[in-house]
Amino acid sequence: MFWKDIPELTYELNKVRSLIKKSVNVKSNRLTLPVMDFINRDAKMLRPGLLILSARIFLPEDKLPESVYRYAASIELLHMASLVHDDIIDNAEFRRGLVSINHGYGVKDAILVGDLLFCAAAELIYDSTSDSDASVILHGLKHLITAESEELDDAELFRKGQLLGLFGRRKYIRRVIRKTATLFVAAMHIGAREVCKDEFMQQTMRRIGYDIGVSFQMMDDILDIISKKELMGKSSLSDLREGVVGYPFVLAVNSGNKKDEDKAISLFRKALSGGLFSSAHRRALVDMLVPYCDLARNEVLSILNRAKKHFVFLPKNKWTVVLLDTIDSLANRLN
Amino acid sequence: MFWKDIPELTYELNKVRSLIKKSVNVKSNRLTLPVMDFINRDAKMLRPGLLILSARIFLPEDKLPESVYRYAASIELLHMASLVHDDIIDNAEFRRGLVSINHGYGVKDAILVGDLLFCAAAELIYDSTSDSDASVILHGLKHLITAESEELDDAELFRKGQLLGLFGRRKYIRRVIRKTATLFVAAMHIGAREVCKDEFMQQTMRRIGYDIGVSFQMMDDILDIISKKELMGKSSLSDLREGVVGYPFVLAVNSGNKKDEDKAISLFRKALSGGLFSSAHRRALVDMLVPYCDLARNEVLSILNRAKKHFVFLPKNKWTVVLLDTIDSLANRLN
Repeated sequence: MFWKDIPELTYELNKVRSLIKKSVNVKSNRLTLPVMDFINRDAKMLRPGLLILSARIFLPEDKLPESVYRYAASIELLHMASLVHDDIIDNAEFRRGLVSINHGYGVKDAILVGDLLFCAAAELIYDSTSDSDASVILHGLKHLITAESEELDDAELFRKGQLLGLFGRRKYIRRVIRKTATLFVAAMHIGAREVCKDEFMQQTMRRIGYDIGVSFQMMDDILDIISKKELMGKSSLSDLREGVVGYPFVLAVNSGNKKDEDKAISLFRKALSGGLFSSAHRRALVDMLVPYCDLARNEVLSILNRAKKHFVFLPKNKWTVVLLDTIDSLANRLN
Repeated sequence: MFWKDIPELTYELNKVRSLIKKSVNVKSNRLTLPVMDFINRDAKMLRPGLLILSARIFLPEDKLPESVYRYAASIELLHMASLVHDDIIDNAEFRRGLVSINHGYGVKDAILVGDLLFCAAAELIYDSTSDSDASVILHGLKHLITAESEELDDAELFRKGQLLGLFGRRKYIRRVIRKTATLFVAAMHIGAREVCKDEFMQQTMRRIGYDIGVSFQMMDDILDIISKKELMGKSSLSDLREGVVGYPFVLAVNSGNKKDEDKAISLFRKALSGGLFSSAHRRALVDMLVPYCDLARNEVLSILNRAKKHFVFLPKNKWTVVLLDTIDSLANRLN
């Protein structure tokens, strides 16, 4: 878990975890095994952790309202549901260090597992009180679904040879906002809003969530290229193989360096054509992308720095420090 | 549409339909086409129609609260979402008279279309006020998902030759309750509850919903066998071919007639092995099942009669008559 060095959150996240377990409880059913398997996997718990931090900063000592935990559990469940369905769509083999649900239990079961997680997430927010927060989460989810569908779109356009504007930086950022940042923004917003009525504070938390979300996705993209299979829990370059383009790739295609641009496009085309990369191909692609990983890394660090600038507006307490440490830990993922 | 002969509901259901359209609006996205295609198909609108009737019976003249329409739209959206995902799981080729979403647009898009419909459904209930009604719907949905997974379970057990208790009548009924009746019960309950605080009335409506739901599923099973492909919008015996067992089949296996029992099992085994039915096989199966369709039909009529007995407790107004007519129209599907 991402938070293991931050003991302040242990109690809170255990509460979230037990809520998650309770919420998916369907007694002795075919889905129990895959759902429990997935839920018990080592997860970063980044979204629920951030949601709770965002609340704690404004309510450092007292008991948090139950709704905070329910929202935190719900947002993690939605995230899990979307992972399970996305893994079907991307035909991913691994997730969270183990075989993906679609590969381990079959596509049919994976569809239902995702539906069940989704349903549990929805139930948890209905149980809580504030309607407008629920709609923030669902709004985020809608964005997530449409972003995923745009990736299918792009892969199709590419296959047809329509490359124009397909790998633009702005297009990439727009998609990352939908695919990843919106749920982070929702988490930070809801945490704050449940305990603090000051709208400027809520906005500040949303901005921090936005920066964390965008940089988190960029980091994932970088790690997909440079990390070992063991480290990420899915094989390196797996996204590209499914026609999903990461940030270093976007930077390469827009580098102005004709040789790298052509190479990137031709390797992407090969990935899409379904041909498995040979290890030589893979090495060539990684070698070409490494300098762009460095560029991307710098951008990530500057976005995380921007996030820190918002801290001047926040209350000063131990939770604010924890959030600051969290941002540094995120940056350290790239070391 | 099922309600076309009941003009009282035209205005109400048009309102529901426009809510549904608004709720799935994601501008110019890859999913817009399949979602709109699906939404514009001729649908029975049975669940939202019943929900509104259940409210109208207790509020015959005045304007219905907006929440009633939102719940009605939501319950139809959930139903649609589950159809789209179930069609992937069952590899169904047709739905609502046209090519299924999975066959027309591909499995990947169908997963996202279902997710989007689900998300839209959840948004609609969050917008409305009464939390406990939302949880009734989600509870129903959980049952639906687990029922679908049990069908996968059974097909697997059967493939392994473990037939014991696989086709029991009680088991069938239990599944139908989850798969179909629960959403009907939810519809009738919510309609009443939104406008009438009398708990006995709500219970009465739930009971009527239960009877309609169970008999509706049995009817679908019967029609899968006796109707022409054109009439049902999917090919005859399609359920069986995917290893899903209908009520006439259950009656045949439990008939005490050894010859029919063996024949049913052997044909089911053939269906599961993936072999396409020859038209001779199909005819043999249909001929064997027809008498059991008659038995099932009698049971459907007696359940619908039981539903009518509850009417003695209901207010007497034109909407009560419409609901009574509705039950008769349902029974007429089998003529």
